[in-house]
Amino acid sequence: INMLAMICVRSCAAVMGCRAATCVRSVHSFSGITVAQIDEEVAKLLELKARLGGDDGKHQFVLKTAKGTRDYNPKQMAIREKVFNTIISCFKRHGAETIDTPVFELKETLTGKYGEDSKLIYDLKDQGGELLSLRYDLTVPFARYLAMNKITNIKRYHIAKVYRRDNPAMTRGRYREFYQCDFDIAGQYDAMIPDAECLKIVYEILHELDLGDFRIKVNDRRILDGMFAVCGVPDDKFRTICSTVDKLDKMSWEDVKKEMVNEKGLSEQAADQIGEYVSMQGGMDLAEHLLQDQKMSQSKQACAGLSDIKLLFSYLQLFQVTDKVVFDLSLARGLDYYTGVIYEAVLTQAGVASVTTEAQNGAPGSTEESVSVGSVAGGGRYDGLVGMFDPKGRKVPCVTSTQTNIGWVLLRFQQRRSGPQRTYWRRDSNSLQSCGMLALRYVLYSLHSYSER
Amino acid sequence: INMLAMICVRSCAAVMGCRAATCVRSVHSFSGITVAQIDEEVAKLLELKARLGGDDGKHQFVLKTAKGTRDYNPKQMAIREKVFNTIISCFKRHGAETIDTPVFELKETLTGKYGEDSKLIYDLKDQGGELLSLRYDLTVPFARYLAMNKITNIKRYHIAKVYRRDNPAMTRGRYREFYQCDFDIAGQYDAMIPDAECLKIVYEILHELDLGDFRIKVNDRRILDGMFAVCGVPDDKFRTICSTVDKLDKMSWEDVKKEMVNEKGLSEQAADQIGEYVSMQGGMDLAEHLLQDQKMSQSKQACAGLSDIKLLFSYLQLFQVTDKVVFDLSLARGLDYYTGVIYEAVLTQAGVASVTTEAQNGAPGSTEESVSVGSVAGGGRYDGLVGMFDPKGRKVPCVTSTQTNIGWVLLRFQQRRSGPQRTYWRRDSNSLQSCGMLALRYVLYSLHSYSER
Repeated sequence: INMLAMICVRSCAAVMGCRAATCVRSVHSFSGITVAQIDEEVAKLLELKARLGGDDGKHQFVLKTAKGTRDYNPKQMAIREKVFNTIISCFKRHGAETIDTPVFELKETLTGKYGEDSKLIYDLKDQGGELLSLRYDLTVPFARYLAMNKITNIKRYHIAKVYRRDNPAMTRGRYREFYQCDFDIAGQYDAMIPDAECLKIVYEILHELDLGDFRIKVNDRRILDGMFAVCGVPDDKFRTICSTVDKLDKMSWEDVKKEMVNEKGLSEQAADQIGEYVSMQGGMDLAEHLLQDQKMSQSKQACAGLSDIKLLFSYLQLFQVTDKVVFDLSLARGLDYYTGVIYEAVLTQAGVASVTTEAQNGAPGSTEESVSVGSVAGGGRYDGLVGMFDPKGRKVPCVTSTQTNIGWVLLRFQQRRSGPQRTYWRRDSNSLQSCGMLALRYVLYSLHSYSER
Repeated sequence: INMLAMICVRSCAAVMGCRAATCVRSVHSFSGITVAQIDEEVAKLLELKARLGGDDGKHQFVLKTAKGTRDYNPKQMAIREKVFNTIISCFKRHGAETIDTPVFELKETLTGKYGEDSKLIYDLKDQGGELLSLRYDLTVPFARYLAMNKITNIKRYHIAKVYRRDNPAMTRGRYREFYQCDFDIAGQYDAMIPDAECLKIVYEILHELDLGDFRIKVNDRRILDGMFAVCGVPDDKFRTICSTVDKLDKMSWEDVKKEMVNEKGLSEQAADQIGEYVSMQGGMDLAEHLLQDQKMSQSKQACAGLSDIKLLFSYLQLFQVTDKVVFDLSLARGLDYYTGVIYEAVLTQAGVASVTTEAQNGAPGSTEESVSVGSVAGGGRYDGLVGMFDPKGRKVPCVTSTQTNIGWVLLRFQQRRSGPQRTYWRRDSNSLQSCGMLALRYVLYSLHSYSER
């Protein structure tokens, strides 16, 4: 397409060049045909040629993968396998089984679960029969699976691709098709124990993958809602203000405040009060402090959340992971379905994004830029989602831990290790037989295909 | 939906019962209203209630996966993992690396590759941007990958899901979303060696999976085309007659002949001659015999194919797999892109299909029926496909071996092994800590979630 466009531009330029030349050359005429006329005819023919698509007149086939998607070559697959094996062995160590669900769901299964992000869902074409959509995450299909099979208690992991029609940023590992590695605990347990285990898993995996230093931010949806209430946010604006707060990792507080006041119609006073709270970071002591806070303590919801954060931190101390965990009131998470604890892990050292343009342009070439990338893991408690699927609305409390932005994890994993991975295939010499000429030819063939690697 | 339909039927029956009763009861009138009128009103109200959808009038959410798709529970995942490990270790033993491609491709990448089956491709909705389709197999994306990366020589395997809007037959393991396990050799080698290796791989895998006795049917597209030519099939009918021959495993010869003559307009004489050839089965001797056949030997194409079949069988003898391989002139394979050797593996013992209706109806229940199922593996040579993607039409000779209908393979694998698989998860006791009450609570939680399995 680019080639075609370039040729078009060129031939247009040629036409314009002709027009400019017309005044000069039209005086030299030859047997009734002026040079300008010839130039015009040539330009027309060139344009026609350009429309036919290049030199051979064949249809120019666009040789590429869909926008925001990628192939994995054997070396990249070896790295992916290594990273996934680390993650899977952690999930298994924590007693999880695995399941699989289809890549598409009934459209209505996904409806009303993702809030403002729903516009990013890929729909399938209506070819008769059911309306289908590609899964947006693994959590909603898991909740559907639990309700459908009446399961109230399971630890499961699921590693699979999900699909989002987002703006891809492939140099930062952000794709439209990408893997998520989910670990979920469904079932009624003592408060905060499964939640603490999910955080421990994120800690273990990021530690083992050795991607560089990281932080796990923790908050609670009830604290956010309570905070919104005591700051004077109207009930029906909780979700939309929440998704504005969620942008604090990409936007300055000034811009976030502007969006709250100008776009979402919040009072400036309320916004300022929110601004004070969301700048707070700490640990168990901050939760304790906020429980004494004159305003915050007026909200029952907030108090419930703060007490749970305290309890959570006591388990995290037990697990010896508090060095990386921070209670951060600015953490909001975009998805609608969270009801309690939420968290997000970020790498704190900027990485190097390698931009390989080889596949696109035909000519090899790569540039490098230093980038800081958002979260690599996240999750939280979603106690209401399974009930949305159950015909009788029976709830199953759940908490999830998702390794996300695997594209970036793989890039970082590769960058922090030297030398190529060379253990991803092995050749077996048993297949050689010893039966004369044909066998000899097979040996030669084996050696041949071996030496080309 | 079933519930709703039942209520509708019942209330209709009630209405009809009322009409029958009208003659008798209309004499007993009370303050101007007859019993018949009351019955009618009741029936109308019942009908309205039925239309509103059951007792509570709520929207009945349909809790199911998309038609022709399934979930895998942890036990099914363990079986799948075991089968895949067997297949992967065979692929690696034969020196293959693995790659991955996106689940969807540009629609035009898939266009014109599958012949009559193209109608089964899932298209994505046009949401702006590119037109996309779910992959129909792994071969076409592989050819696109080779052309895009200018690779002329690779042994690769790829295990992934593919999508076909076919009529699902889930009791026979036939789904709309299903796994394929592909092993392909791309590159220029001595004739028939990569082809023989692909057949050896199918043999090894079916032998190791121990699914019961099997046969691998072999033929060559050039033999089919030559046969069509010498039998008097017009050139432009080769492909359509080929896809009718392909139905011989599901239809009798009489029905296949009828389709050729009545639907596809072939002369009865030509059909009868084809009928004679396609009943032939044998080994190297049959190829030798047909090379002497007065008619067949007139076709250069057929002779090239028959010589290659002879050479193929000499390699297969070397590999000691001829006990399961049969040269069968009725084998056609549906897909357009094959150019040379084609083959297909079938299980020769009928299996038991277990029909579990639990998930659909709420009540557990399963019946068993004995079924014979089509191919579990197939493949062939496709020397023209990569050239269709290359801007300069450069060809890369390729041969593929695909383990397909994995749903049925998993069913059979499970049925032929006794006792449940119990090794798919293990619990780690290292996570226990010894720090007083909280630790004790965590221990209790661990024991609890352990004992529920």
